[in-house]
Amino acid sequence: MSKEITARAVDYSQWYNDLVLKGGLADYSAVKGCMVIKPYGFALWENMRDVLDKMFKDTGHQNAYFPLLIPKSFLSKEAAHVEGFAKECAVVTHYRLKNDPNGGGVVVDPEAKLEEELIIRPTSETIIWNTYKDWIQSYRDLPLLINQWANVVRWEMRTRLFLRTAEFLWQEGHTAHATEAEAVEEAQKMMEVYATFAENYLALPVIRGTKSESERFAGAVDTYCIEALMQDGKALQAGTSHFLGQNFAKAFDVQFTGKDNKLEYVWATSWGVSTRLVGALVMAHSDDEGLVMPPRVAPIQVVIVPIYKGDDQKKVLDERIGALVQELKQAGIRVKYDDNDNSRPGWKFAEYELKGVPVRLAIGPRDLENGVAEVARRDTREKANLPLEGLAARIQDLLEEIQHNLYQKALHFQETHVTQVDDFETFQKVLDEKGGFVSAPWDGTAETEEKIKELTKATIRCIPLNNPKEGGKDMLTGKPSAERVLFARAY
Amino acid sequence: MSKEITARAVDYSQWYNDLVLKGGLADYSAVKGCMVIKPYGFALWENMRDVLDKMFKDTGHQNAYFPLLIPKSFLSKEAAHVEGFAKECAVVTHYRLKNDPNGGGVVVDPEAKLEEELIIRPTSETIIWNTYKDWIQSYRDLPLLINQWANVVRWEMRTRLFLRTAEFLWQEGHTAHATEAEAVEEAQKMMEVYATFAENYLALPVIRGTKSESERFAGAVDTYCIEALMQDGKALQAGTSHFLGQNFAKAFDVQFTGKDNKLEYVWATSWGVSTRLVGALVMAHSDDEGLVMPPRVAPIQVVIVPIYKGDDQKKVLDERIGALVQELKQAGIRVKYDDNDNSRPGWKFAEYELKGVPVRLAIGPRDLENGVAEVARRDTREKANLPLEGLAARIQDLLEEIQHNLYQKALHFQETHVTQVDDFETFQKVLDEKGGFVSAPWDGTAETEEKIKELTKATIRCIPLNNPKEGGKDMLTGKPSAERVLFARAY
Repeated sequence: MSKEITARAVDYSQWYNDLVLKGGLADYSAVKGCMVIKPYGFALWENMRDVLDKMFKDTGHQNAYFPLLIPKSFLSKEAAHVEGFAKECAVVTHYRLKNDPNGGGVVVDPEAKLEEELIIRPTSETIIWNTYKDWIQSYRDLPLLINQWANVVRWEMRTRLFLRTAEFLWQEGHTAHATEAEAVEEAQKMMEVYATFAENYLALPVIRGTKSESERFAGAVDTYCIEALMQDGKALQAGTSHFLGQNFAKAFDVQFTGKDNKLEYVWATSWGVSTRLVGALVMAHSDDEGLVMPPRVAPIQVVIVPIYKGDDQKKVLDERIGALVQELKQAGIRVKYDDNDNSRPGWKFAEYELKGVPVRLAIGPRDLENGVAEVARRDTREKANLPLEGLAARIQDLLEEIQHNLYQKALHFQETHVTQVDDFETFQKVLDEKGGFVSAPWDGTAETEEKIKELTKATIRCIPLNNPKEGGKDMLTGKPSAERVLFARAY
Repeated sequence: MSKEITARAVDYSQWYNDLVLKGGLADYSAVKGCMVIKPYGFALWENMRDVLDKMFKDTGHQNAYFPLLIPKSFLSKEAAHVEGFAKECAVVTHYRLKNDPNGGGVVVDPEAKLEEELIIRPTSETIIWNTYKDWIQSYRDLPLLINQWANVVRWEMRTRLFLRTAEFLWQEGHTAHATEAEAVEEAQKMMEVYATFAENYLALPVIRGTKSESERFAGAVDTYCIEALMQDGKALQAGTSHFLGQNFAKAFDVQFTGKDNKLEYVWATSWGVSTRLVGALVMAHSDDEGLVMPPRVAPIQVVIVPIYKGDDQKKVLDERIGALVQELKQAGIRVKYDDNDNSRPGWKFAEYELKGVPVRLAIGPRDLENGVAEVARRDTREKANLPLEGLAARIQDLLEEIQHNLYQKALHFQETHVTQVDDFETFQKVLDEKGGFVSAPWDGTAETEEKIKELTKATIRCIPLNNPKEGGKDMLTGKPSAERVLFARAY
């Protein structure tokens, strides 16, 4: 194949990298572990961001912006948080460079050493709760519902484009509440917002649940999550929402006077999704021909390729297609007319297939005569001639159909990849041969969880919401188990 | 006054800080020189960003994202750039913390020292041109028109909220072109985009011009700028657009094969505006009662305050005002109904005056009977009773009128604050007593420019576009001068 994409069956991991790089989503950078998000990838992220941002605002949240840099001592204030985050961090120790006296470019000025080192935020709970201390005095100041779109840095030794990078883009919501119940409700609500977004926009079915204690966010009382399944049978955590209890309020001494005039610590949540979702989208829907974009977030929903010989034919096509482009735009469709004459139609077909554009129209002089356009769907790769008359409405329907089809396909894959097992031997076999989620009884201890991870590389992805408390025996230890949980190997 | 805002005449600088802090735009943070942008301030920035983003896309630019961190050696590659930027930078030297063996929280792990230090971007020319090297081979890859919304860090010893902070938010456009003429045209076009934005949205008249050599961006061949005037007579650089020649292409070896099959270095521009514009907007329009927001970017354009006693009156008001809110929203107006019963109308009036909401409606039961609302303009503080019937359309007009009025007022101030002088004594007198721009003949040398700065703290703000080459004598040295330039004391 001219696109030179590694087939999934040959090397799934290489297939993914090929798509991200050749599809124009991202590129490696000169800084280890940091990527460049290219215009096509960034347009996808912008579409995702805009939908999420509206969902956050519709649920009463406001955006704000907190500093990139966090004093080192802040990380130590919440005991569990420091264990989880104060490790692989980028540390700023100096604030000035100077010319190398020996002529070797610039060097760090040893005299410009910071008294206290600053950490590039790996997440912002600490700096935000240190600020909330000044903003919250009374129950009248609550709830405080704030979100931030930001870059964060977590030093990673093994990185993968979008899925795991040292710097990534994300949003982090940080809310403060007067009661525990309200904070728990908020954490659940935002998990549901994420699930709705993943399913309705990314066409990505997810399983809602809570994390086991060892997989929880560092500093959380409970972590709600949505877990998605990739085509190779590995799970991917697509979003988390944390009920933080009063942990951060206590660490940063944030108290409020209630209606009853008593001082109480504030209840907190935090929740986030990141550019990782781009990786999830790529892995969930794409095929050996290239990316497959769900129409609702696709940067380009429809591409039109003119087929012609010579300027006269081109001129006639330009006029009719120009009108069509206007029609499609007025119908709210993101359309591109690619009349670049440096490349041939066949090359363009392959290019937009690679880029995963949901619908491709090809129109030549004969088509104009017949009043039709050749319409090709990216998802099924079916083609049909459709009348130009009323095409915008047909394409709107088609885009919705493609969106629905991608979701159904992914849902079918997910549904057929949750396997119930009761013994450890079958567990290993399913992981190795079939993949996906394995629903198995667990004795509820971190020791068993750790042991299973060591033996199989599978982790507890979540304890599904409304999980039946069926009882049973742990598949590994044989000890009593209260319920089944979902294991999987994961990204 | 209950709001406790320092009057401009008493202490202009304190007045500004009062507005930013008490108006809810920003707050100090725990990190020296870094600010927290509060929800109201961030909503203002979002409105500004959205308008600019659309203007950039309408002129053919795409967004992308490049790494936060830049290898130290990159800064040394462009000779002038290193002088300007490789100084007050935040330097990342380590990538890990560890628990203090002596129990004192966390400490930097000395074993996790980076081989080469990383700099938090003060601007991204170097990392971007290092990337463009891989993206540009042929004239077919040009022009490359890319913009990035990002945070940057420039260590500053003396900071002021929005105007000068160590970290700030901005956009930086970085374009690559096949010819010098095209790059110059791009730099000029983006200066014009900024000027249009400042004038049409921020109601901020600006003077377009080029910088003198010593005020140019480090690495630029020419810097185009827009300069605004604040109420205290000091100038503020509101945006810059740089023609970079082939400097960065040469530094990072970015060449392309032209149509003639010859290799040539690529021509470049870069251009940016930042959250500094929030400071400019505050200083240009606000008064001793608080902020004054230009309607087109105001987070809240209209606030409605109900005037009532008891739940029965409230209920009647809620119903009618609910309908009005819908009407206003449908007309595209950003409206807030403040029916919070924790505070009294008088307090709310003062609060929204402080926040600079362009239009305030007050509605009580008597008003409903008469079918009117009390409409108060923030800019002139005039009040009038207007019929509820057809109010949305009247308010749309009123918002436009306020926008226009703010611009005209600022324009009048600017026009009456450009003073032509020919001798140095008058120059000093004008600076001290009147302020504003001083148009004076300059001999064109950096020495004279520097001398004037030393003596008066005034700098050359710009050489206006289409400046008449009138000839004359430098006001300080008496040497021949080709043209007048604009001096001012500046932020």
